This record gives sequence, structure tokens and C-alpha cells, in this order.
Amino acid sequence: MLKYAAPLQKLVEELEKLPGIGPKSAQRLAFFLLSRPDDEVEALGEAVLALKSQISLCSRCHNYTTGELCPICEDPHRDASAICVVEQASDLMALERSGEYQGVYHVLGGALSPVADIKPSDLYVSDLLERVRQVEPREVILATSPTVEGDATAEYLRQLIAQLPEPPQVTRIALGLPVGGDLDYADQVTVARALRGRTRMEG
Amino acid sequence: MLKYAAPLQKLVEELEKLPGIGPKSAQRLAFFLLSRPDDEVEALGEAVLALKSQISLCSRCHNYTTGELCPICEDPHRDASAICVVEQASDLMALERSGEYQGVYHVLGGALSPVADIKPSDLYVSDLLERVRQVEPREVILATSPTVEGDATAEYLRQLIAQLPEPPQVTRIALGLPVGGDLDYADQVTVARALRGRTRMEG
Repeated sequence: MLKYAAPLQKLVEELEKLPGIGPKSAQRLAFFLLSRPDDEVEALGEAVLALKSQISLCSRCHNYTTGELCPICEDPHRDASAICVVEQASDLMALERSGEYQGVYHVLGGALSPVADIKPSDLYVSDLLERVRQVEPREVILATSPTVEGDATAEYLRQLIAQLPEPPQVTRIALGLPVGGDLDYADQVTVARALRGRTRMEG
Repeated sequence: MLKYAAPLQKLVEELEKLPGIGPKSAQRLAFFLLSRPDDEVEALGEAVLALKSQISLCSRCHNYTTGELCPICEDPHRDASAICVVEQASDLMALERSGEYQGVYHVLGGALSPVADIKPSDLYVSDLLERVRQVEPREVILATSPTVEGDATAEYLRQLIAQLPEPPQVTRIALGLPVGGDLDYADQVTVARALRGRTRMEG
């Protein structure tokens, strides 16, 4: 129906497949790119093409990497005696942004879900157990999301790790009110968790 | 500071340059692309690269095209005796989406602006006058945006066209309340324009 030039139409269609980008945003982005200098648009196109051809999974933690190991596993300043278990590499990046964590990671590749038929064998669970057995870390931090699936995955991993010959300490990230959040607007489950997880104030 | 794999970092940086896409959206899009099949990501990359190399401006109306003329100028079913003048090709697409207009277009490439130092010589103004003189259309519809710049540009064009030997009818798109909009929420200038532009109801 629309009379776009074919390459413009094609780009709009491809952009529409991205999450959170509807027909109008896709068109706006395509017209924006048309108005930019050639080299800027080429840089974006090349970056998209390079993505899948140059990136693979870290053989140790399954984070994204261009080499055998990811930048975090390769960094000698990171504390290898703490392993933080996350569902996705994007969760790992959220933790990195906090600047709070100096240990290493293990990316599961998802969470257990009977509904979506995701079983332990679909995730990097046996890798994790093997790694914990070999490395013998001081602590394993379970940082799967505070959802039904993430909680179930954390509990499943806790049980498996507890069965190891010399199990490390297993912890779960804290649940509570988001910083800057208003108690009045928080959902009741979060408020209940925040109360249950209350800590002593020291003066 | 962040430990992205280099190609991922590069893509996030390129995506952040797009309008309406902040650091978080850029990261979300990059991780989404990583999770997609190779051919889908390649299709996006190729579409971005094809954009600037394959698209140029229509020699008649300055809409985007892959050939000498744009699909609208080439379409024999369009009414060449009505020329609708818009600021940008994206405005043209907005009018096309309405399905209301069967004439042809003229893209100015912007609006006059003393602040941004955009003069008539920076726009396709002389092209428009030459085209009107040659084609002798029945009507020229001024569909520049209802902004200070767009209104000034429309008034400027109206005066120029009126000085032609056999001037066509010159019209301006209607201003008023948006369909589905609430009178109570409309700004006072829009309400004033809607009142001034009121039309007789026929029963």
C-alpha cells in the first residue's frame, strides 16, 4: 500500500522486528538514517553484521566473547572464588553496571520453566556443577530473577550444590524495595519480602 | 568501564546514536539481536548498508527513490494537477498513510528558519516555482507543519506563487483538534484555530 522506495521499505520491515519498535518508530529511525552521513550509517550496518560473526560464548561462564574466554574470566583482578549465577548475559551486564561485584559469573542461558518446557538439560547446569567441583569457590551467589521461574531455578541449584562433597556457601541476591521507590506504590509481595529481609541498623 | 565483548560494545554505541534510543534500549536491542538467528541479523545489517548506497532523491519532487523518479511521480494514476508541498519525505509518508490524497508532492527539504539560518536557497523553493510554471497545476496544497517555521514558509510560498503569470489555487491544510482528542486537553492555540476553522454542519 505505501510507496516507499524498496530499500527503505525493507529497512523499515527489519527494524519493526526489534522489540519495542513499532511501525512508526521504525519509519522514524529509517528516515533518520537517511538524513545521516554515509559513513555513520555504514558504521551501524557493519556493527550489526559483525555481531553474530565475531561473537561466541565464553567456554567457562557462557558470557558473550570474541575469544575463548570472556573479558571477565580473563581478568586476573576478578575474584574467582565467588561465582555469581545469572539467567542471561544481559543480567550479568546489569550487575556489572552496579560496580558492586568483583567476582566471576556463570550464565545459565535461562531459567527452569515447566510452561516453556525448559529443563535443566537445556541450561548450563551440569557445567556449573562441574565448575564448582573443580574450582571449589568460597561462595556461589544465585542471582536468577525474583520470578517464579528464577526462584525455582535458584532453589533447584541450591539443592544440587548442597549435595557436592565440599559445598561452598550458597547465597541469594536480596529482594526488597527498589532504591528511590515509594513504599506506597510497591506491590504487596515486594513489601512482604522487604519486611522479611530487614536488616539491623547500626549507628 | 563495562566489559562487553568489543563488537557488542560497538553495536551498542552505534545504536545509542539513534533518536529515542538510550543506553538501556541500545543494550536491550543488541542482546536481542545476539539471541536471533544469523540470517535475521544479517538481513538487518544488509538493509542498513543498502539504504544510503541505493537511495537518492526524485529529480522531480525530491522524495526518496531508487530510480530517477519516485514511485509516486511515476504512477500514472496520480493526479499531477495537484501538488502538495511538504517539509520532509517523512511528512509525505504521513499523508500517504491517510489514504486521502491522490495528487503528487513536492518535498522542500525543510522549513525557513532565521534561527537555524535556513534560507529559501537552502530549500527546493526555486524548483517548486519552476515546476508550477511548467506544469500549471490546478492546485498547490501547502502542507508544511503548523509551526512558526512551517507557517512562515507557507506564507512565503503563497506570495511567490501568487506572483506567477497564471497562478494556481493555493490552499493550506486544516488546523484543528486531532481526531479522538479531548477538547479539555487541547492547547489554547489549537482550540482557537479549531474554532476559527469551523465548518457548517449539513444534515
